[in-house]
Amino acid sequence: MDKGRVLLSVTGFHPQRWYDLLSKDREVILEPEGDGDPSITYAVVWKQRPNLLAGLPNLRAIFSIGAGVDHLFQDPNVPDVPIVRVVDPNLSQHMSEYVMWRVMDHHRQGALLRAQQTRKLWHEPMQSVASDVSVGIMGLGQLGRTAAKALLGLGFTVNGWTRRSTDMAGVTAFHGEAGLTPFLNATDILVVLLPLTPDTEGLVNYDLLGKLRRDNRLGGAVLINAGRGKLQRDADIARALDDGTLKEASLDVFQTEPLPETSPLWNHPKVFVTPHAAATSDPTHLVGPMLAQMDAFERGEPLYNLVDRQAGY
Amino acid sequence: MDKGRVLLSVTGFHPQRWYDLLSKDREVILEPEGDGDPSITYAVVWKQRPNLLAGLPNLRAIFSIGAGVDHLFQDPNVPDVPIVRVVDPNLSQHMSEYVMWRVMDHHRQGALLRAQQTRKLWHEPMQSVASDVSVGIMGLGQLGRTAAKALLGLGFTVNGWTRRSTDMAGVTAFHGEAGLTPFLNATDILVVLLPLTPDTEGLVNYDLLGKLRRDNRLGGAVLINAGRGKLQRDADIARALDDGTLKEASLDVFQTEPLPETSPLWNHPKVFVTPHAAATSDPTHLVGPMLAQMDAFERGEPLYNLVDRQAGY
Repeated sequence: MDKGRVLLSVTGFHPQRWYDLLSKDREVILEPEGDGDPSITYAVVWKQRPNLLAGLPNLRAIFSIGAGVDHLFQDPNVPDVPIVRVVDPNLSQHMSEYVMWRVMDHHRQGALLRAQQTRKLWHEPMQSVASDVSVGIMGLGQLGRTAAKALLGLGFTVNGWTRRSTDMAGVTAFHGEAGLTPFLNATDILVVLLPLTPDTEGLVNYDLLGKLRRDNRLGGAVLINAGRGKLQRDADIARALDDGTLKEASLDVFQTEPLPETSPLWNHPKVFVTPHAAATSDPTHLVGPMLAQMDAFERGEPLYNLVDRQAGY
Repeated sequence: MDKGRVLLSVTGFHPQRWYDLLSKDREVILEPEGDGDPSITYAVVWKQRPNLLAGLPNLRAIFSIGAGVDHLFQDPNVPDVPIVRVVDPNLSQHMSEYVMWRVMDHHRQGALLRAQQTRKLWHEPMQSVASDVSVGIMGLGQLGRTAAKALLGLGFTVNGWTRRSTDMAGVTAFHGEAGLTPFLNATDILVVLLPLTPDTEGLVNYDLLGKLRRDNRLGGAVLINAGRGKLQRDADIARALDDGTLKEASLDVFQTEPLPETSPLWNHPKVFVTPHAAATSDPTHLVGPMLAQMDAFERGEPLYNLVDRQAGY
């Protein structure tokens, strides 16, 4: 079997490095070229143009750039071929760094200490230790598990919430709708790493935030969202921060990205904003495994890290 | 043997909690009372008044509040009795949290991203991953080892420098004067956790900082000092930051504490100042083991975590 040709369709960032690296091994066609091209076997996509994939008569597999695939299903006509998503140790590692960094900055009162510094105030605040603090992770896929392991290593109490029952050593597990309130009630710092599906859209709203534990050694509840922006209601987060339901938040994702200049979250003193940069899909790590999967597929081997279209992730 | 009486002598913070907790098990005399009192068997001290201890005729052991004992030897007349220092898992844990927090904030470009946020700038900076970055720890006592273990768990390369040869799994070890330059040349982020002795005073000077690796994925060299202020030359750090020898610094300790209002470090945009709060000596964790050591000593058992007066720590 010949090496199938690849269509690369990317919105929102420059595809040059992906193009260069994929081209080392296969012929690559860069959208907007390639429309309806029968020679195309694979598509490598990030927020591809709607209906583009449906028009490719001989498409055999789709590769998503990124761990989440909600961007892909914004296209109403995704053909029924296998969809491979990114499962990459480097990506999980980078995400767990972000989670550790943000948990530490809230736990060790970074915002308070930076404010003290600007006033030249030498004063030791009340400090918790990691074992005083419980971090609750929503979503225990590879990203959530890697982050949980790092946090356990530093001595935090870790709770996990998942759609279906799941286990992880050292993590207090909750699941399903019935488990959500007890999970939140036992959590000081909420870390959201869920996939975006019709079930999870808007889940992180005012009502949910109100169930977090506030009477704690941190002096309040904290939200960290490094999953997807549409999991949250931006306005509910601002309201929760303003009325004390939340103490602080670190947000890497937003309902609209880039975050509009008019958003009150940009200059909110209790919010730390990053530009969807918690974990970077680095083509130097990701292209090799993609090309290896294409080769294996052409030798008749199965694809792996496939998306469950029913679950949506 | 009767329970010996304890003299508590503290400068710089309120001793009430120490007094209350020690008093649960033993009779405690709070300095300035107790001068020359022959009934006093133990002294629990933080920056005690000079010559106070020498005047106690029946003193049998000294307990230092804190992991370092340089504060104690500012007194020129410390009697020749055993000195016990704090070796506490909670203290090591708290210190390793601080080290992880500061390493992460420099590694993940916290200062740059906070500056971007104030300008409402949505832009992903170049980002390193932990495996790109080497953290060099000076001092591999219990504090240094606990921090090294946490950093290794997150994927950082870890170098260690010690006075005498020492080993730790996963850590590239350097030692002595001959090992110092190679250690610094291989280090992007320097973490100082040395004891303060005549040999280490002023060690972290301009010359030393100039040997750190600057041509790296972080975009420069970083200093984190959570040991003792007199290990460093404050003016040399300011100079190194201003001329690019250092990219950034996190300083928990200073030559003079509290840090004087006139110090250029207070409002330096590349410095994060904390008020000697990296690891707190929490009496709720420390008093129990102290009292247990006194009981054991009175049963004829040896004291442990003793200071080597020759080495000065």
